[in-house]
Amino acid sequence: MVDRSNTMSGLSYAVIGTGALGGFYGARLQQAGAEVHYLLHRDYEHVRQFGLVIESPEGNFTLPQVHAYCDAATMPRCDVVIVALKTTQNHLLPGLLPPVLKDNGVVLVLQNGLGVEAEVATIVGAEWVLGGLCFLCSNKVGPGHIRHLDYKKITMGEYDADNQPKGISDRLKTIAADFERAGIPIELTDDLVLARWQKLVWNIPFNGLSVILNATTDVMMAHDAARQLAKELMEEVALGAAAFGRTIPPSFIQTMLDHTAAMKPYRTSMKIDFEEKRPLEVEAMYGNPLRAAYSVGTTLPRIQTLYYQLKFLESQYLHNVNSR
Amino acid sequence: MVDRSNTMSGLSYAVIGTGALGGFYGARLQQAGAEVHYLLHRDYEHVRQFGLVIESPEGNFTLPQVHAYCDAATMPRCDVVIVALKTTQNHLLPGLLPPVLKDNGVVLVLQNGLGVEAEVATIVGAEWVLGGLCFLCSNKVGPGHIRHLDYKKITMGEYDADNQPKGISDRLKTIAADFERAGIPIELTDDLVLARWQKLVWNIPFNGLSVILNATTDVMMAHDAARQLAKELMEEVALGAAAFGRTIPPSFIQTMLDHTAAMKPYRTSMKIDFEEKRPLEVEAMYGNPLRAAYSVGTTLPRIQTLYYQLKFLESQYLHNVNSR
Repeated sequence: MVDRSNTMSGLSYAVIGTGALGGFYGARLQQAGAEVHYLLHRDYEHVRQFGLVIESPEGNFTLPQVHAYCDAATMPRCDVVIVALKTTQNHLLPGLLPPVLKDNGVVLVLQNGLGVEAEVATIVGAEWVLGGLCFLCSNKVGPGHIRHLDYKKITMGEYDADNQPKGISDRLKTIAADFERAGIPIELTDDLVLARWQKLVWNIPFNGLSVILNATTDVMMAHDAARQLAKELMEEVALGAAAFGRTIPPSFIQTMLDHTAAMKPYRTSMKIDFEEKRPLEVEAMYGNPLRAAYSVGTTLPRIQTLYYQLKFLESQYLHNVNSR
Repeated sequence: MVDRSNTMSGLSYAVIGTGALGGFYGARLQQAGAEVHYLLHRDYEHVRQFGLVIESPEGNFTLPQVHAYCDAATMPRCDVVIVALKTTQNHLLPGLLPPVLKDNGVVLVLQNGLGVEAEVATIVGAEWVLGGLCFLCSNKVGPGHIRHLDYKKITMGEYDADNQPKGISDRLKTIAADFERAGIPIELTDDLVLARWQKLVWNIPFNGLSVILNATTDVMMAHDAARQLAKELMEEVALGAAAFGRTIPPSFIQTMLDHTAAMKPYRTSMKIDFEEKRPLEVEAMYGNPLRAAYSVGTTLPRIQTLYYQLKFLESQYLHNVNSR
């Protein structure tokens, strides 16, 4: 399905948000020969001078020279604009994307949750939006210094404004081929909506409960009540998917539970954000799925309970997030 | 409704569990002239020697001599046996009640939650069981030393094994009159089931959330999401009541919310238990209502979510409570 020839496509890439995720994928693309431009904020000065350092079980590498920017308006327009910000920064996107996107270029949204492509579509137009779901364990351990821990696969698909499955386009294949040449396994999907709900099956129980119960995945899976709650939350995610005509069978849920029980102890991204007192991705991961399901007449009360709890817990260290 | 003559009835009382609640009510009854016998455990030696000390905004008092026991088998049989243990100790009741209960005597169950009279009924027979719901803020601050903070009212009713409303019996009136003479306001109810679900309207949201969100009532009520979650939990309690043919109208819920918003910051009993790493009354307050509702075909998913969360959180400091 993916073009496996040996040369990069020649597409230019912009990475909006050069952190644990954007920095890792951008550096791999650059290392494989792509032209990559990085938007940075706090780390700009450091990266401009010293480049990017990637530690990885697959081998450490350094990119001493990278195209670093602190202002989207100074970046060249690119063929592929990768959105790698946390969704809690999405209010910035209307200012960041238009200056960087080439005519006929696409935005590849590599964010958590649901409805993130729709937000980008309101800025650049639905036909220029792709979505990707990253299965990646990676942390930023210092300025421009990223530690890749495990996994790296991305599931990519075309966005459809009417939530319908869409074919696998040539442009999707071309981008996927660049990632594959950079050593990133890509799964192409013709149904981004299904892929996003499938990813929520894991994210909704374990991200929220890891914060609320102050626990890692292994401890939760070892406890009857926590494991049962995770299962019931997964079943509610399947209900949400069903409200959009997507089937997530019990066997999928069981596989997720078995997989989680077998995993090494894992601190979720939301738990890390919580411990660092950063805003939580509650709206993208909980609020958007709840509102989407509600819009078609489905309530998801267990997920709603987690949503309210997370909003409250976040507000205890963030101020001005009380109301939405 | 209540006999307001000036002399006590002459009924003898046993207090099973002489803590913040049992010690307070027992001492008030004794002070008013009743014969009261106290079962103690850890505090037995101290109370036998020094009696009980009650601090209260209504006046402090000391009972230097009380009938203290460390073994139910050594107690005299009494007309009224007050169960004032935490429900987490209910596995002890089959050994404690039979030796203390006089023929034709009654057990008055002053515990939180639902289904607590049914547990006692299996031990002494349903016709000898009364229930009471205490609205009391009181702490034990030392051995035999109780600090009464606020409120003290009890709602009392006859237990019915078929969950039907029951008349207000003469024995109920007699006991209520003793409490009233001891300065304890009593409300008599002919429908203990309704009274218990009504009390759960407050207990279920605020006891559980105070532990899970690590917050006092005022902070929760000041936050949109926590307040909304409390309201939705209250609505689920009303659904549970409805499954047993009891109506809890929206106006009742609104009154509870308004009352809570106006209250002084309040640390719930479950929060106190949690902070002292004691077993939580999760089964009486959550498990029993959930199982009761489920037995008549009603699921309460938000309450179920809190139940699982509380079981997990408790297990992190208590061991051997994982499974039930």
